[in-house]
Amino acid sequence: MDKEYGVRNPRTGQIDYQITPPALEHLAIHCKLLRKAQIQWHQLGIAGRIETLQAWKQVLLSEQDDVIQALIRDTGRKSVSVQEFNSLISTIDRWCKLAPTLLSPPDETTTAIPFIHKQHQYIPYSLVGIISPWNFPLLLSNIDAIPALLAGCAVVVKPSEITPRFIQPLSATISQVPQLQEVLTYCQGTGETGKTLINYVDLVCFTGSVETGRKVAEAAARRFIPAFLELGGKDPAIVLESADLELATSAILWGSVVNTGQSCFSIERIYVADSIHDQFVDQLIKKAQRLHLAYPTVEDGDIGPIIAENQAQIIREHLQDAVAQGAKICGGGVEERNGGLWCHPTVLTDVNHSMKIMTEETFAPIMPIMSFATIEDAVQLANDTNYGLSAAVFAGRPSEAIPVASQINAGGISINDAGLTAMIHEAEKHSFKFSGMGGSRMGTAALTRFIRKKALLVKTNSQPDPWWF
Amino acid sequence: MDKEYGVRNPRTGQIDYQITPPALEHLAIHCKLLRKAQIQWHQLGIAGRIETLQAWKQVLLSEQDDVIQALIRDTGRKSVSVQEFNSLISTIDRWCKLAPTLLSPPDETTTAIPFIHKQHQYIPYSLVGIISPWNFPLLLSNIDAIPALLAGCAVVVKPSEITPRFIQPLSATISQVPQLQEVLTYCQGTGETGKTLINYVDLVCFTGSVETGRKVAEAAARRFIPAFLELGGKDPAIVLESADLELATSAILWGSVVNTGQSCFSIERIYVADSIHDQFVDQLIKKAQRLHLAYPTVEDGDIGPIIAENQAQIIREHLQDAVAQGAKICGGGVEERNGGLWCHPTVLTDVNHSMKIMTEETFAPIMPIMSFATIEDAVQLANDTNYGLSAAVFAGRPSEAIPVASQINAGGISINDAGLTAMIHEAEKHSFKFSGMGGSRMGTAALTRFIRKKALLVKTNSQPDPWWF
Repeated sequence: MDKEYGVRNPRTGQIDYQITPPALEHLAIHCKLLRKAQIQWHQLGIAGRIETLQAWKQVLLSEQDDVIQALIRDTGRKSVSVQEFNSLISTIDRWCKLAPTLLSPPDETTTAIPFIHKQHQYIPYSLVGIISPWNFPLLLSNIDAIPALLAGCAVVVKPSEITPRFIQPLSATISQVPQLQEVLTYCQGTGETGKTLINYVDLVCFTGSVETGRKVAEAAARRFIPAFLELGGKDPAIVLESADLELATSAILWGSVVNTGQSCFSIERIYVADSIHDQFVDQLIKKAQRLHLAYPTVEDGDIGPIIAENQAQIIREHLQDAVAQGAKICGGGVEERNGGLWCHPTVLTDVNHSMKIMTEETFAPIMPIMSFATIEDAVQLANDTNYGLSAAVFAGRPSEAIPVASQINAGGISINDAGLTAMIHEAEKHSFKFSGMGGSRMGTAALTRFIRKKALLVKTNSQPDPWWF
Repeated sequence: MDKEYGVRNPRTGQIDYQITPPALEHLAIHCKLLRKAQIQWHQLGIAGRIETLQAWKQVLLSEQDDVIQALIRDTGRKSVSVQEFNSLISTIDRWCKLAPTLLSPPDETTTAIPFIHKQHQYIPYSLVGIISPWNFPLLLSNIDAIPALLAGCAVVVKPSEITPRFIQPLSATISQVPQLQEVLTYCQGTGETGKTLINYVDLVCFTGSVETGRKVAEAAARRFIPAFLELGGKDPAIVLESADLELATSAILWGSVVNTGQSCFSIERIYVADSIHDQFVDQLIKKAQRLHLAYPTVEDGDIGPIIAENQAQIIREHLQDAVAQGAKICGGGVEERNGGLWCHPTVLTDVNHSMKIMTEETFAPIMPIMSFATIEDAVQLANDTNYGLSAAVFAGRPSEAIPVASQINAGGISINDAGLTAMIHEAEKHSFKFSGMGGSRMGTAALTRFIRKKALLVKTNSQPDPWWF
C-alpha cells in the first residue's frame, strides 16, 4: 500500500484531504507492539487505567477545538459534532465509574461440593480491533474503545476512510498520555485495512452495513475470535389512535431527521392508526417544513449534508422507486448545492412494503407513512423486515403501548419517544435478525464482553475425593 | 438420504445397530413444527415449563433402565453411563431451581434521564440446535438442552452417529410428556444431518473437535446465528515440589483415565518438579497398574473400551511417534480384544513438545510426564499449546498453587485436584484459544445465553425532550 487515498469534503464535494493507509506488514508489526504493551496495561490495574483515561480526558478538554473542527470538516455538521465530543467525555467518566465494580470478580467461595471452593479471575482479551463507520465518526469509534481499554485490553481503531480527519487531532491528544499511547492506536485506512486488521486482533467490534458485517463475522469465525456487530436498522414507529399527536410528531421528526437520518437507530418507517393518519401527516409535514439545511455555513440550519457520496444515490433510488409505484412525496428529496449533497426532510404517503423505501435502509431524513386498521396489522407491518435494531410505539398511556412493544422483534423500543437507545446507555439489549450479533454493547455487558472468566476450583481437604478410583 | 447407517459396537467391533438419518427436507419441516410449537412453550411461562420438565424427570426415573442399558451398549462402559443418567436428573433439578430467578428481568425503572424509565424483557431464541459428541452421549446432549428448554426455546438435538442407541429409549420418555414432545426432538443422523441442521435453527451449540467446530462457527456466521462451541483440550497438570504426592497421583490418575480418557477435560500432560519426578512416576505407575479393563463384561474393571474406532488409530500414532522419538513407555497402550479396542492406562516418560503426545489431543488414558526445573518453565510448558480448556496445579498449600494457576491460559483450573470443572457446574468460565467460542456453558450464563434482552424505554412526561428540534 502506502498509497494515498483522497477524501471528499461533504460540503463541497471536493477531494481536499488525503490519508495513507499503512502498509499491511507495518500494521502487523504495530499490532504486535500493542499486544506487548497490553501486558503492562493489564498489570497496571483498574485504578491505574482509570487515572490514565482521566489524564486523557483533561488533554481532550484542552484540545477539544481541534478535534471538533476536524469532525465538522469530516461530517459537514456542527452541533452533532459537538455532541459527539461531549459524548466521548461522558463515556470516559461513565465507564471509569462503573469499571471497578464490573472488574471485581464476585467473592464466591462455596460450591455444591463442600470441600471445593471457587474463585474467579477476569482476563481481558489482549488486543481488540474496532472498525467504525462514518455517520458518528468519533462516538462510534470510542463507544467500544473506552470499555475495552478499562477492561485491560489494548485497542486498535480503524475509522471509516470517508471521515478520517478527526484521527490526526485525536491521536495528538493520545500521544500526550504516554501510557495510553502504547495501548491505543487510531489507524487511518480503507476497507482493506480493516479486513487485514481482523487477522491481528483477538476480538473485533464492527459498526456498519449488514453486508460488510457478515463478512466480518465470517472472517472472525475463521480466525476463531469473537465478533461484536452493530449493523443496520429499518426502525418502525407505531402511532396508536390514542397517541398525543403533538408529542408523537415532534419525537418522530427528531428520530427521523437527526444527523440527516444517518443513524442506525433512526425512524425509517411510520405506521399511524387510520383514524388519525391525515392529521398526523399534516402536523409532521408542518414541523418538517420548519427545518432548514445547514447551508451555506455550518452555523446555519438543522440538517447537515449527506456525508457519504454513494448514499445520495441510494436515497434517490429509494425515492424514485416509491414515486414510480404511486407514493406521494412532500419535501425536496436530494439536492446538490455547490458540490455538496443534501437531503431535505421529506414525507412520503401512499407507500407500501413492495417499495424499497419501506424495506431497505435509506439512511436519510425521509419519513414514509402508512396507515393501519388494527394493532395486529401494525405489529405485522413493523415486524415485516430483515432488521431488528430498535422501534418506537406511541399511545395515550404507556400501559397501552407496552403490550404492542412486546410484540415487536427489536432490541430497544422507545415508548412515547423515539431513538432513546441513543440517549440511554444503561439498558442492555440485543439486536434481532440482521441488525447485529454478539451481544449487547449497552449496559454492563458492553464492558464485560472484553473479559474472559477463569474459574479456580480449590480442593480444601486432604482426603481422597469420593469419585476417585 | 433415508439410507441406513451401521453403528459399531465398541465391545465387539460388530455393526449391530442401524440408524436412518432423516431426509433433509423432512428435517426442515420438522424444525418448522418445533419453531411453531415454541410460541406456546414460551407463553406457557417458566412455572409451566418447570412442571413439564419435572413430569419428564418422573418418566425418566421410571424408564431409567432402558436409557442406561442403551447408553451402556453405545459406550461399552457401565458406571459412567449410570453417572450420565444421574447427571441428567440433577441437571433438570438444578436448572428448575435456578431458572425462575434468571428469567426474571431486574425490576429497574430509573435511568440517567429522570423522565425516562426502563424495563427489560427476555426473549428466547425460537429454535436451538445441539450437535453433541460420542464421549458422554447423554450428558453432553442435555447439558445445553435443559437450560435452553427452560429459557423457552424449542430444541433439536443431533447426537453423534457413533453412539445413537440411547436416542430411541430417551425419545420414548419424551413422547410420554406431550407438551415436551412438541418442543424437544432427539434426531438420529450423521455429520451431514448436523451440517444441515445449522440451516434451520436460530442458535447452535456444538461439542466436538476443533476442526468441525470451526466449520460450525463459519456456517453460523454465514447464517448470522450465535454459535456456542465446546471443543478439545490438552489439559496440563503442574505438580510443584511441595505437593502432596499421594493426593496428586490419585487425582491425576482419575483425571487422566476416567471414561478411558475420552473427555475434553482429561489431563493429557503432566509436568512435575524435577526433585520429585521419579517418586511421582513410581507412585503413578503403581496406582495405574491397579486399574483393570472393564472386560470381559461391563461389570468388570475400571476402564471401558475405546468408543470411536478411529480414535484407536490416533492413540497408536501418538504412542508410536513418542517412542520413536525416545519416550519410555510403561503400560500396554492399545489392545484389541475380541473385536473391541481397548487402551490400558499407560505412563510415558522422557517426552517433549516435539511429540504429538504432548501437543495433539490423544483422548486416551495416557499419562505423559515431563520434569521441570523452575515454575516459569512449568508455566511456559503448560501454555505451549493451541488449547485452553482447563488445567490443574498441585502444591502444598493453595496459596502457593494459585499464583501459578493465574498464569495458565485456560478457563477452569483445579487446585490440588483434577477435572473439577466436570463436578462443579456453577463456576462460569470461558474457553481459551481453540478450546471453544461463544461464552460459558457453566454458571448462570449457560441459561442466559439462550435469551435476548429487549429494553423498553418509556418517556413518562408529556413535555418535549430537551434535545428535540
